[in-house]
This record gives sequence, structure tokens and C-alpha cells, in this order.
Amino acid sequence: MRYSQALIPTLKEAPAEAQVVSHVMLVRAGYIRKLAAGIYTLLPLGWRVVRKIEEIVREEMNRAGAQEVLMPAAVPAELWQESGRWQAYGAELLRFKDRKGADFLIGPTHEEVIVDIVRRDVKSYRQLPLNLYQIQAKFRDEPRPRAGVMRGREFIMKDAYSFHADEDDCKRTYQRMYDAYLAIFRRCGLAFRAVEADTGNIGGTLSHEFQVLATSGEDNIVACDHEACSYAANVEMAQIVPAEKATPAAAPREQVATPGQRTIEEVSGFFGVPAAALAKTLVYRRDFDPETGKGGTLVAAMVRGDRELNEAKLKRALDASTLELAGDAEVERATGAPVGFAGPVGLVVPVVADHEVLAMAEAIVGANAADGHLRHVVPGRDFQATAADLRVAVEGDACPRCGKGHFKAYRGIEVGHVFFLGTRYSKKMHCVFLGEDGKEHVMIMGCYGIGVTRTAAAAIEQNHDEGGIVWPMAIAPYQVTLLSLQPGDADVRRVSEELHEKLEAAGIEVLYDDRDERPGSKFKDADLVGIPLRVAVGKKSLAEGAVELKHRRDKEATKVPLAEIVATIEAKVAEELARGRT
Amino acid sequence: MRYSQALIPTLKEAPAEAQVVSHVMLVRAGYIRKLAAGIYTLLPLGWRVVRKIEEIVREEMNRAGAQEVLMPAAVPAELWQESGRWQAYGAELLRFKDRKGADFLIGPTHEEVIVDIVRRDVKSYRQLPLNLYQIQAKFRDEPRPRAGVMRGREFIMKDAYSFHADEDDCKRTYQRMYDAYLAIFRRCGLAFRAVEADTGNIGGTLSHEFQVLATSGEDNIVACDHEACSYAANVEMAQIVPAEKATPAAAPREQVATPGQRTIEEVSGFFGVPAAALAKTLVYRRDFDPETGKGGTLVAAMVRGDRELNEAKLKRALDASTLELAGDAEVERATGAPVGFAGPVGLVVPVVADHEVLAMAEAIVGANAADGHLRHVVPGRDFQATAADLRVAVEGDACPRCGKGHFKAYRGIEVGHVFFLGTRYSKKMHCVFLGEDGKEHVMIMGCYGIGVTRTAAAAIEQNHDEGGIVWPMAIAPYQVTLLSLQPGDADVRRVSEELHEKLEAAGIEVLYDDRDERPGSKFKDADLVGIPLRVAVGKKSLAEGAVELKHRRDKEATKVPLAEIVATIEAKVAEELARGRT
Repeated sequence: MRYSQALIPTLKEAPAEAQVVSHVMLVRAGYIRKLAAGIYTLLPLGWRVVRKIEEIVREEMNRAGAQEVLMPAAVPAELWQESGRWQAYGAELLRFKDRKGADFLIGPTHEEVIVDIVRRDVKSYRQLPLNLYQIQAKFRDEPRPRAGVMRGREFIMKDAYSFHADEDDCKRTYQRMYDAYLAIFRRCGLAFRAVEADTGNIGGTLSHEFQVLATSGEDNIVACDHEACSYAANVEMAQIVPAEKATPAAAPREQVATPGQRTIEEVSGFFGVPAAALAKTLVYRRDFDPETGKGGTLVAAMVRGDRELNEAKLKRALDASTLELAGDAEVERATGAPVGFAGPVGLVVPVVADHEVLAMAEAIVGANAADGHLRHVVPGRDFQATAADLRVAVEGDACPRCGKGHFKAYRGIEVGHVFFLGTRYSKKMHCVFLGEDGKEHVMIMGCYGIGVTRTAAAAIEQNHDEGGIVWPMAIAPYQVTLLSLQPGDADVRRVSEELHEKLEAAGIEVLYDDRDERPGSKFKDADLVGIPLRVAVGKKSLAEGAVELKHRRDKEATKVPLAEIVATIEAKVAEELARGRT
Repeated sequence: MRYSQALIPTLKEAPAEAQVVSHVMLVRAGYIRKLAAGIYTLLPLGWRVVRKIEEIVREEMNRAGAQEVLMPAAVPAELWQESGRWQAYGAELLRFKDRKGADFLIGPTHEEVIVDIVRRDVKSYRQLPLNLYQIQAKFRDEPRPRAGVMRGREFIMKDAYSFHADEDDCKRTYQRMYDAYLAIFRRCGLAFRAVEADTGNIGGTLSHEFQVLATSGEDNIVACDHEACSYAANVEMAQIVPAEKATPAAAPREQVATPGQRTIEEVSGFFGVPAAALAKTLVYRRDFDPETGKGGTLVAAMVRGDRELNEAKLKRALDASTLELAGDAEVERATGAPVGFAGPVGLVVPVVADHEVLAMAEAIVGANAADGHLRHVVPGRDFQATAADLRVAVEGDACPRCGKGHFKAYRGIEVGHVFFLGTRYSKKMHCVFLGEDGKEHVMIMGCYGIGVTRTAAAAIEQNHDEGGIVWPMAIAPYQVTLLSLQPGDADVRRVSEELHEKLEAAGIEVLYDDRDERPGSKFKDADLVGIPLRVAVGKKSLAEGAVELKHRRDKEATKVPLAEIVATIEAKVAEELARGRT
């Protein structure tokens, strides 16, 4: 491709609203343009990157036995009414009426549609299992679209859905998808972790996220640092090994007046002890139904004063359908004291405490009385509580899998997610089959998503420098950029043109910068655009019968004899593409 | 691909609503499933066909110098307000409000979006020309969606838009797109015609349709039957060679009482002459603006009694912005007679007449008086009219291009359309550039569309028999279907499995029917699904060391020695794929 004929509108400055690196660079390097908040056009370079990721996804999905389909974007409301999501989904859902007034939506995900297809055409266990996927533009009306294509309103997603006669079979496909995802992100050339994850609103009982590691990531993950251990989890999910129980303190519990001392900082300062000597008690309302206004019993949860309570863990521990912090009035009613003085001793609501709290020799806790705390409180002696894993994991926590390593903390960008769904949709929508036993059974489902446009953005968050993007070879828009440094010079032009032809004939993807621009500006654009290999044809090196080859990652270029350059490039491209396939 | 693991839900019966062949067969053969009126899921086989067409489109577009992008489906209303289409488009347009209440639409076509991109990033003649395309699911809320994916509400389209500094350059790209379209439909293995077409609502001054020939087609086209001539046109556009003027009749014109004789049939019956001896006069209202209720002057148009008036031609001849038949009251006011008795003699509104009318020796026409006609009316003597080409072309009309051949009539399915747009969008949306002269100019545009899903349906309308689809090789979902006739037999199974492996290793796309079904049902499904080559492995032929090979087009299978079958298939596939490329 000749740069002079390509639409690559590079910019000196990114729009002020662009705050994350990938957004800034995708705009500046001419990969994307904004059409509306969270809605972007993929220009030729951007689309090439996305297509490459799509092809990798497609190849690995097909290899894993999945079949590609294309479902409509426009979905009749009835199906979503059947699953209950028409009612449950909020303003994120694009709803519209067709010309006859029928309710429709633009599918942000396609469980209902695929279930409808399968329940109509699949009747027998002999037709199972099935794993169907599509790659499609989705629309989700995010309240605060930001970060460019990292969290857009319109974005490209690969969504797959599998159907099974039993759970074991579903788990086999789940594992196959897990392995396919490893292969996909490895082939994309990304550093990532597959981590155990919360199933959140999609439901189901087993799930893993695929997180591209980047300091700018929104997700906190921990991974075992032991070389033989692969344990990794979202901090929301990371299991924590229960602490060893300390010998209980002997001192009797004692109430101390602590006027105005409510926060952990204030109380630990008041007593002159570290926060770890305290235990905090938080009051939650569970199972409240906002529609009927019913439900909503209270429960108290405890973690050590220096720890953060993990609400996802608490929700799972309680098996609660909803969970939220109780209001001030509720707290006062439950504890008999204003907020800031809650404690487990004599509390009338059930108490669930993190293992670590129950392992303490003694603790300082709220007294359930205004301006009062209790010290020398011994768990088991002074209060009873259900033990659970409630706190957020932190770096240094012991690994629950191998028992040898410890957690290292990372930040990640979620680019893939696999779910064991069970019968969540198939039961509601009566997606059944006749089993070998001649009886009707509900199908077991899994679902598996990859954010395709987000993967492109995550790749940049992980791979860039001040000058621009540093694409992994497999997903770069071109493999080589060929700079003609003095296109006005007859020799330079001739060699550049020949090299362009030879590289293309060798099947190498080349962006040929034939523009009538200064070398400096060509080098700058090349850095910004981020194509892995750069060949510069210039008068100086040409006099020595050589051209200059530089990897985008490297600082310095090396001289390569003209006669060897095509073979050198072929070898480098092949080597880097192969690396992800091992 | 093993049939036993594939989702190919063939049906004995198609739904009653399916009326056209392609709809019936796509549903019966398990290619598509309906989600809502005019909205279909592409199942694995359907999606494979569409992907193959997409890839052919993509290769030829890239070869022709176009660059692929992806624009958002969700488009802010402002851009369409700027072009005026937000107001002009009717209920076909999917409009919605986002969560903040802003007006959006799902783009049925993307002129506004691409113009917005280009006007922001392209400033100089040095950045032109540009030709940008995308392949995308579109939504148009058709009032009567029907015919399956032939005219659906959601469908896949390739839309391209080119930008130029001058008209000549635009015409060069237009020609390049025209040639690319020839290559695309040729490679798809279709019999088609590129025909001159009306520019309709898209506007512009030059356009060609690409029509797949099929008796079920909705469009009427004519093409010259002379072997050396390539003239072809939509009947709306087909130029008609003016007839030679007959010697005017000498008889004086005479009014005849024709009580109640209004239609051509009635009047020709009354006079005992053929319809060709009559000339009919139709009154139209032109340039009426429905918004302001202003404009709308009347005009009369004449064609011979046996001809059909072509409103598209009339509109062009008059250079009218709108055109519609006048109401009864208007006709009476203009002619002084009730509908059915209009004629050109003494008429106060302007008259435009088809060449053929003006060439008549004499004609019978309405008398502009109730229950009266005039005979022996001689054009030029008894009335004056502007001459124009107004009638619908018919088979047998002389070719306007070569002057030797005559029109043959065909029915076609429009699968592609190229337009020279001019400045229709670029002017309204101020899409300008600095020319070599240092001055600002408006860009000249072309636009070029292909209905991808419709091409798949059109291929079936053209290629099928009673048993099912007969795919051209290049767009068949698989190239070969391999039937294991007695999968329970050890030899048959072993040979089938080996053949499956060998064919796949040779890069052949195979659908391997390994199901535990009777041969008869496998043959039936193979015919229905329509894969070009069928290899049957059965006990009988295997005893002779052979398998049976049959082309879907042929009646009889031939025996091919097992040792030669892979090479035979490779050769046949290669030959058929090559045929479209010549």
C-alpha cells in the first residue's frame, strides 16, 4: 500500500477528551475517528487491526469445533420478555419500535436469539453438543462512554454459545474454549492472565476472565508468584487462605468512651494501635426487591480494620440475590447507635466475619453505643459469627492453590470472558431435548465472549512508548513500513519501488511511505503508527549498498545489504508470527 | 466438517409464507432461520456462502484501489439533518433516542458519515482521490418484507464511496468500480448483465445496475441480441430509436361520439382498429412540493395506444423534481372533459409526446370533450408537441447503440448499483478541498453498492432444480460433499474417513456426511443443500475399487478409481474456480 494513496490522517495533537493512551494514539495515528460519544469509525488502519484479531479468533474458534453464524442485530422484544431481560435491562439497551409499532432492541448480547434458534431446530441428544459463535457490532448505551474503543457504545464482539446434554459435556467445551482463548491472546502477542472471575449479572457458576496486563487496566488481579503455579484471579474472586488462629487474649472486654471517633483512622489513632488491631463491622441490607419494596433483611459483616471488604465475596457467602450498604437509619435501628460505632457484641442481626477476624487474639470493635468502643474483644468468647472469606486479596497473600507462592498484584484489561451458564436461559425459555433415556431435559449452556475492538486498544495500552504504538506482529496493520527517505532521488526511488514490489511478491504486508515529505516526519509517523519493522531507503546507506532496518521496539537501526533485506524481513516476520503459536 | 456435528437443520416443508424459490430453499436446506418479518439468522451454511461472497467482493475492491473501513451503524441525526435526509426519509429509517435523549438512526446507507469523515481529514487535492468501502449489516424497515433474504429488513451490504477533485477523475473510478463489479459477479459464477439504470432517489447523473438474470426477477431489462454489442438497460432507461416518420394522412380530422368508451381497449374495439392506431394522453402534475403544498403545474404526455408510458423517462424528459398522475378533478379542469377523453388537440397544458406518436400517419385521440374522440388526427398538423423518448422498451425494439441488433427482454435481480453522484452530498455538507489553483472546490463523489445477502439469494433463483440448490463453485458453502453410504460397514467407514482427511489435507472444503442415515436421505439432503461435487462411498462401487462422483448439475454419477479421486476433485474444483476469473 502506498502511503500517498492511503487514508492515514495522523495528527500532532489528540482531542483533549482523549485521556487513555490507546485512545490518544488511535486518534493521533489515524486509526479511528469519533462519530459521536463512544461511537467510532475504524479507518483503514484500525479496520486492518480489527480484521486481524477477528481472523485469529475465527481460526481458533473453528479449530475448537465451534461453528460461525450471524444473528440479526435487530431482535424482537418478545424473546427478551421471555427471558425477563426486557424488564431487567436498563437504559443501556437500545430499544426501538418498528414501523408497525412492534417493540425491538439492538442485541447487546444474543443468548435469547441463539436459544430460540436451538430450541426450534435441536430436539435430540444426538444433535448435541453445539457451539455457535458470531462476530458482530454490538451497541450498549454506556452512561459514560470513554477511553475510545476501550469502552465504546458501539463495539465489535465475538460471542459464542454452547449447548449440551449434561454438565460434564459443557465443562469439556468450557475447557476447550478456555484453551482456545489462551491460543488467541497468545497469537495476538499479548501478555495476559486467565483469572478466576465472578459470574456477575450473566449468572452461572464458573467463569474465567482473560486480562491483558497493563498498568492502565481497570481490573485488579492477583497471581501466584510460584513458578510452577498458574493460580490467578480477579481480586473479587481470589480465595484467601484462612489465617492461623492466634491464642485468645485473656483480658476481659472493656468499654471505652470514644467521643466522635468513628473511622478506622480515628479509632486506631485514639487507641494508639495499628488498624490491624481493629475489626470493622458493616451493616448490609440483603435480598431487597426494589419493585415490590419487599425483602431487605439486615446482616453485619466484619473484616480486620486494615482490610477492604469484598462485596462480591460477601454476596456469594450469603447467597444473597441483592446486597447493599444499609442506610444510616437502618444502622441505628439495628445497632442502637449512630453509624461508626457498630460492633458484633450483642448485635441482634446475624454476623458473618472474615476468617482473619475470627483468628485475632483480640480486637477493638464498636460498642453499639454512641461514642463508645470495646477493647479486648475475643472472637468466640465475646461474640459468635459465621466464618467466611470476605476480604479483598492483596499482594503478598498466600496462594490458595499451591500453598507455596504468594500473590503478586497486577492491573488488567478484560478482553475475554468464559461462563458456565448452566440452565439460566434454557430453563426460562424451555430449550429442551429428548435424552437417550427418552425423557425431556433442559439443555446446559456455556457462553464465551471476546471484545475484539477492546483487544486492539488493550494491545496498545500494553505496547507503546512516548513516540507511539508498538504493535505485536500478528495484529499490526502492516508488517513492514518502507520509508523512501529521498523520493526525489532517482536511485532511492528505484530501489524503494523495487523493494516494495519484492516484499509484496513475497507475501509481506508493506506500507510504503512514498510521500514527498522530509525523512524526519516519515520517521515520526512510522513511530506513531507503530508497524513492527521499518526499512529506510536513503542515499547515505544506499551508497554502501545497504538499507536500514529497525524494529519498532529497538532504539537503533542496523544496516542490511540490499541483497539480503527481503530474506531478512521474511525471516523476522515468520519468526515473530510463529512465536505466538507455540 | 462432519455433518453429524454440524447445524444443518434441513426440513421437508418450507413455511407457507415462503413463496420465492430462494426463500423456500434457504429455509428447507438449513441456511437461514427467520427471527422476525424480514429478519433472518444466517446459520453456518448460510454464513459460509455470505462470507465467500464477501471475500470475493473484498479482493476485487482492494485490487481496484479501494480501502476498507468500518463505519458505525449508529449515526447521530445531525448529519442526516444536514443532508436533509432526516426529514425526507420515511418510516423505512430506524430512528431512536439514546439514553440522553439525542436523536440517532441506524444507517441504511452511509453517505453522510463518510462525507463527514472526509471533510474533516481531507483538505487538499493531493489527498484525492479516495475510495472507501465497508461491508456491514444494514437495516431498512421495508413496509412489506418478503422473499426471505432477497428483500429483508436487515441485510448485508457492501457500500463504497469515492471522492475526487474533478468529474473526469470520478468517472475513471466509476469505470474501475464497474469493472470490479463485472469481475465480482463473474467470479461468483453468475449470469448477469450490467445495465444502464435510472439514478432514482440517490441522485446523480450516471448509473448502472448489475442484474442477475432469473425468471423470478422483479426488474425488467433489455439487452441487444447482436453478438458484438453489449448494450443493456433497465427498461426504465433503455433508449428507443425514434421511429421513421410515416407519410401524414390526408383525411381531415373528425370528431366521433364515443359514449362511455374510455379505455384503449374500449376505443380500439369501438373503432375496430388495433390499439397501435390510437395515441393516449395522460395528464401529470409536476414539481409539487408536498410540504408547502406549492408547485404542481400540469403537463400532458402521449404514447401510442399499445405502449406503456415510462414515468422515469418522462420525469427526466421534463427535468421534473416530482411527478405524479393528476387527479380526476385536475384532468377535468385541464381538458374540459372527464377522465378518458383527454387528447392533444387544442389542449392548454404543454404536451410532450413519444417519438413514435409524432411519427404516426394519423391517430385516434381523445376529443377533450365528454364521450368524444377525434380520428384522422395528424401530428404536426392537428397538434404540436415536444418530442421525447417516453415509452417502456419491449423485446424486438431496435438497439440504439449498434443499430443492428434488437432488444431481447430479461428479468433480473438487482445485486449491484454504481452511481456517479456528483456534488449532491458534498455540496450540502460542505465537503471541500484546496485545489492546485489554491482555491476551494467541492468534491465530486461516486457511490457503489452490492447487496451481499441478496447476491446469495439471486444465485439460487438462477441456479436450482426441483431437488434443491445448484451452487456455483465459488460461493458454495463447501466444494465437495462426501457421503458415506453405509457408515456401519467397516470398509466404507475406513475409506470415507481416509478420503475426508485427504481432501481436507489437499485444501478442499468438504462436508462429510457421516450420519447414521439411509443413503436415500443422504442423497436427498445433498441435492437440497446443493454442494457442487458429490462423492459417494458405498459397498458396491468399493468392491470395484471405485467411488461415485457426481456434479450437482449432472444427472448421472461416474465411477472414479479410489486412487484417482482426490486428484480428480482437485482438478475439477480448480477448473471451476478458474472459470470465473477469466
